[in-house]
Amino acid sequence: MTDQSEHVLALRPIGFVSSPYQSTAEVPKGLGAKHGTEGILNILPQFAEGLADIEGFSHLFVIWAFDRSKGFELLGIPPSDNRQHGVFATRSPRRPNPLGLTVVELLRREGALLRVRGIDMLDGTPILDIKPYLSSIPEQTLRRGWLAEAEARQKG
Amino acid sequence: MTDQSEHVLALRPIGFVSSPYQSTAEVPKGLGAKHGTEGILNILPQFAEGLADIEGFSHLFVIWAFDRSKGFELLGIPPSDNRQHGVFATRSPRRPNPLGLTVVELLRREGALLRVRGIDMLDGTPILDIKPYLSSIPEQTLRRGWLAEAEARQKG
Repeated sequence: MTDQSEHVLALRPIGFVSSPYQSTAEVPKGLGAKHGTEGILNILPQFAEGLADIEGFSHLFVIWAFDRSKGFELLGIPPSDNRQHGVFATRSPRRPNPLGLTVVELLRREGALLRVRGIDMLDGTPILDIKPYLSSIPEQTLRRGWLAEAEARQKG
Repeated sequence: MTDQSEHVLALRPIGFVSSPYQSTAEVPKGLGAKHGTEGILNILPQFAEGLADIEGFSHLFVIWAFDRSKGFELLGIPPSDNRQHGVFATRSPRRPNPLGLTVVELLRREGALLRVRGIDMLDGTPILDIKPYLSSIPEQTLRRGWLAEAEARQKG
């Protein structure tokens, strides 16, 4: 283990999200939240060439910045439970590095603009990276931790 | 679409990867690459509390920095093909923002240390964030773009 905690990585947006959500209160959250919302990933003209062949993929990873979140807390109560959990076991915006990750369905590319389904970001959110979504973990091997327990408690 | 291209996000490592790979040449790449390699996510002591309840999840997203990659190219030839593709349609390290994303299987937590399987990072790689892997896209709805075509060409 190297000690490089002084190491700083400076990132710049490659584009911005057009979303119907103007405030976090509007974004569906918690158990059973549906993310079928459509939106647009507007890629800046200088990065548009990097989208070549992206239309062949049905789903994309989008890494983005929680740009309206301030500070972080290591323990917090997520919307899907009434107990606190470690920030790395949740999708809380109040993270040491305010990175968001969303899997979206690519509906259509129009030049430097990607029409997608599955938006959970606010309007104007800076996009940091896009990667093809290639494989998935078979559902029967997945364990969903405190979230499965919270669901069971709320049903019970 | 907001114009905030001057916006800079400064990130710091929350920990570092212990990996058997010392150079990129050692990391399995390209079609059919297997990533069953075990390694350790060493979380810095000041962030360890954020791991609470993480042991309930079988798989984790790890967002990390390609810290030994310099510059980027918008079009490049990935190891899995002999044709060039846009950087956002590949997992190339030479990206506008040098972010890596890996799904790992969590084998065991030992304090601030996570033993995982599925490592494809170099030894000493800075970890930026960890999130629970919660759901997956059903395989029958996935399209894998140029990668499926490259596989077909190489088999044919």
